Amino acid sequence: MLDSKETKPRIRDPERTRERLLQAAFSEVYRSGFQSAGIDTILAATSVSKGALYHHFDSKEALGYAIVEEIIAKRHRDTWLRPLSSKEQPLDILISIVQRTSVRRKDVEGGCPLLNLAQEMSPLDEHFRKRLERIFRAWQEGIAVALRRGQSQGTVRRDVVPEDAASFLIAMYEGYVSLAKNAQDTKVWEVGIRNIVGWLKSLGNSRQFRRGGRQISKKHLVRPRQRFQ
Amino acid sequence: MLDSKETKPRIRDPERTRERLLQAAFSEVYRSGFQSAGIDTILAATSVSKGALYHHFDSKEALGYAIVEEIIAKRHRDTWLRPLSSKEQPLDILISIVQRTSVRRKDVEGGCPLLNLAQEMSPLDEHFRKRLERIFRAWQEGIAVALRRGQSQGTVRRDVVPEDAASFLIAMYEGYVSLAKNAQDTKVWEVGIRNIVGWLKSLGNSRQFRRGGRQISKKHLVRPRQRFQ
Repeated sequence: MLDSKETKPRIRDPERTRERLLQAAFSEVYRSGFQSAGIDTILAATSVSKGALYHHFDSKEALGYAIVEEIIAKRHRDTWLRPLSSKEQPLDILISIVQRTSVRRKDVEGGCPLLNLAQEMSPLDEHFRKRLERIFRAWQEGIAVALRRGQSQGTVRRDVVPEDAASFLIAMYEGYVSLAKNAQDTKVWEVGIRNIVGWLKSLGNSRQFRRGGRQISKKHLVRPRQRFQ
Repeated sequence: MLDSKETKPRIRDPERTRERLLQAAFSEVYRSGFQSAGIDTILAATSVSKGALYHHFDSKEALGYAIVEEIIAKRHRDTWLRPLSSKEQPLDILISIVQRTSVRRKDVEGGCPLLNLAQEMSPLDEHFRKRLERIFRAWQEGIAVALRRGQSQGTVRRDVVPEDAASFLIAMYEGYVSLAKNAQDTKVWEVGIRNIVGWLKSLGNSRQFRRGGRQISKKHLVRPRQRFQ
């Protein structure tokens, strides 16, 4: 009995160790940036030896690429792409995703893991840049496809150019996350959510969406149920 | 004669050395980020001794703060605040600033010096954060004041909330700069300029601005002189 109990964890250990290393590395990179991330900090957080770390990842860079591909890309798919591929109205989905973005202090102060790494590493390391760009492209494509579907369904204005609206949304979203991170202030992100949602509503074809009116208008912000005039 | 010639440079030297150190440090931080910026690289670029560097700046941090206050803040005033304080129509001014933003490969690939530092250092160093935030605040305030002036003059729509529109513009601007930096592609920034200008035009009260119509609409992008329907 004891033997079989001991065997099971042994079989799974490498996988678990790898996962724990990845999660600890993600946290450390999120906190300090990739270049300043301390391998010793990651080892201390996981009680894993340096030898075991390099058994799983050939180099610090390999660990960084794995963070992008296995953690950041996955979160992105779960948060944006999967909901967007459902059959609901795309503007409803986008508004819901934006509104559900965390306003917790820790998250606002740390900023967006994708943007943080892109800002830091894209000019320095082409392997990072390409991996991060794939996420940005999938993000833009996912939004554009959903908006196009909305146009076919008649819920998104026909004169909207889906690819441009998608990049506009991503730029706004990441821009506000950056402003909030710099201000270290959740209120900045709350204003961002409100303005992004206002803008999303302005893409709508239906009366319901039109009520949102033009973004950043007093009417929209103060009396959101008033129709735009 | 020789003596007097020799005296002049000697008097000016400390000031010039400080300025050369600052410029070299700015370039190195722009390229590598603050934490990874190499003091030796800065010294090699200026042929200044380590002793002389620490005569001018107490620490690497002090050098970083001086970059923010003396280089980045100044550029910002020159590019945004000074033109915005003129008596021209604020939307004309804003459109002109955005359109004149460099599309040179080097600049697009390096991103925005203000945002780069904010992304990297705001969560790590409160002294950096406060200095950077002052620039963001002055930026937002400068745009908001100008938009309010435009409302008094009748060139900006009355239902625009100046502070919100200002933060929206900054978020969009920095967001697109980030996307272009990640893509290492000047075309991404060119699309950004086009979309930001389209949005700025939609804030206008005059027929001229209304022509721009809603941003990211096919009509605006393909036939910019068509009025929005």
